[in-house]
Amino acid sequence: MSVLVVGSLAIDSIETPFGSAPRALGGSATYISAAASYFTNPIRLVGVVGGDFPKEGLRFLEERHVDLEGLEIVKEGKTFHWAGRYHYDLNVRDTLKTQLNVFEKFDPKIPPRYKNSTYVCLGNIDPVLQLRVLDQIEKPRVVICDTMNYWIEGKNKELLETLKRIDILILNESEARLLSKEPNLIKAARVIRGMGPRIVIVKKGEHGALLITESTVFSAPAYPMENIFDPTGAGDAFAGGFVGWLGRTDDISEENLKRAVIYGSALASFCVEKFGVDGLRDLTYLRIQDRFRSFRELSRFEEDYVASE
Amino acid sequence: MSVLVVGSLAIDSIETPFGSAPRALGGSATYISAAASYFTNPIRLVGVVGGDFPKEGLRFLEERHVDLEGLEIVKEGKTFHWAGRYHYDLNVRDTLKTQLNVFEKFDPKIPPRYKNSTYVCLGNIDPVLQLRVLDQIEKPRVVICDTMNYWIEGKNKELLETLKRIDILILNESEARLLSKEPNLIKAARVIRGMGPRIVIVKKGEHGALLITESTVFSAPAYPMENIFDPTGAGDAFAGGFVGWLGRTDDISEENLKRAVIYGSALASFCVEKFGVDGLRDLTYLRIQDRFRSFRELSRFEEDYVASE
Repeated sequence: MSVLVVGSLAIDSIETPFGSAPRALGGSATYISAAASYFTNPIRLVGVVGGDFPKEGLRFLEERHVDLEGLEIVKEGKTFHWAGRYHYDLNVRDTLKTQLNVFEKFDPKIPPRYKNSTYVCLGNIDPVLQLRVLDQIEKPRVVICDTMNYWIEGKNKELLETLKRIDILILNESEARLLSKEPNLIKAARVIRGMGPRIVIVKKGEHGALLITESTVFSAPAYPMENIFDPTGAGDAFAGGFVGWLGRTDDISEENLKRAVIYGSALASFCVEKFGVDGLRDLTYLRIQDRFRSFRELSRFEEDYVASE
Repeated sequence: MSVLVVGSLAIDSIETPFGSAPRALGGSATYISAAASYFTNPIRLVGVVGGDFPKEGLRFLEERHVDLEGLEIVKEGKTFHWAGRYHYDLNVRDTLKTQLNVFEKFDPKIPPRYKNSTYVCLGNIDPVLQLRVLDQIEKPRVVICDTMNYWIEGKNKELLETLKRIDILILNESEARLLSKEPNLIKAARVIRGMGPRIVIVKKGEHGALLITESTVFSAPAYPMENIFDPTGAGDAFAGGFVGWLGRTDDISEENLKRAVIYGSALASFCVEKFGVDGLRDLTYLRIQDRFRSFRELSRFEEDYVASE
């Protein structure tokens, strides 16, 4: 098994009510590969950064055993930059800046030895680029794709082409409604399954996640967090935990997809406990297992009561 | 065990994108007692209606074995009337009319033989009236209370008095945030527990419900419904299923509270499948049990995977 992650690497400026980080390591590929790396490695990464990308960022990925052969470094360019501010209600955020920089001309090139990757995770990037990645992969076992409202609205036609070629779409609640034009989430997932992906995962933040296949709806709880420091990257950490677990087990049965959703949720919960990628820095497999079990406790209830009558 | 329900009885005018019911039987006490009646009966009801209350409404309650001794009928008055319209997105509704009518001067009188009730469910009414009910009950084992933004904003001081005397508060997500002034739901529940109730249940509609005690957070999934015909009364049906199960089992252990939340969720899911109270009309205990088990399937995932390494 081999996991390939394609997405953005970024320098983020994050402000939350609890502090700020002016030049934090960010980007979908960064979070996805860091989260996935706790389950299997090396994780193969394809992305682009500018000459200003901090050495510390490269070191972080290397320490997480991320294979950087697919990382393009445009020396004279600047790294993708995003700046955002979260409100006291962390569900609300303002995007202050989005500078694509080297990402504007990004043309993902898959190194020859990555072409046999079995688990491919397409982070939230232009669906045209997502397609170009798929054109270069020989025979992926599972293609997982993330997207966002920006592409649903701005590149709808291209996104629909991409959706025909993926297995699992991960998107959030409002994106599911936007893409399907259907307010009911269960119906929305059905509509989206009709667009191509046979499995749809709807991330609902503090409400957990839904896994919807042809025959099953699985409802994963959210880990009850009182102290969320920074929601940035939670969705990507989810995708990383999800694909990491699939890569580790190479088992895409429904039962195991459910576990993968819980591992994704676990990694997302670690992610938001600290600033930027810090929550994904010093985890251990044991701590992840513990949290997995907490998720069980959270949603477990005993079989039917035998009333004394 | 004996369950007492106090709340409103109403004539509702409901419009949804799927149809309308100009004079439907409604009110919190109606839904709560109908839902609870599937678990234990008779359910003792205290409320008020006008001379215009349809005979059919009384017959419905009688058929559900609801004890109507506590139902005051003001012959010359008119029944509480509510009119609302749901949008295509059923999470959004406009209240078109609220006519208190006989409810304006309602002063709940608990019949002497109701005073020994052990499970008391205070539907969403003026907290002043909720307190007056509690003053008349001898020694309730558990007091469950529902409320809404209208009272949180308009009668905050009175509501805080009521909260000191109840065991379990049931409220929805936005109400929990409003009452606690805290956007994080887990923190919100903690703040609310500090106001009196040792157990808080947060209803989250399509996202399920949270049960929060001193030591536990339990996350109940929502039943995945593609066809919701009328969300009216779902929250009351939840409260009814919840208190009904507790009344049936007389067991307030944490494990059994979790089951009660699932039975509440099950009754809410039946409720919204049809118009008004129709979804609570012809249920059987067997169907309810089946749905209980569906909730288990929905959130169940297998114990840890043994990776082959």
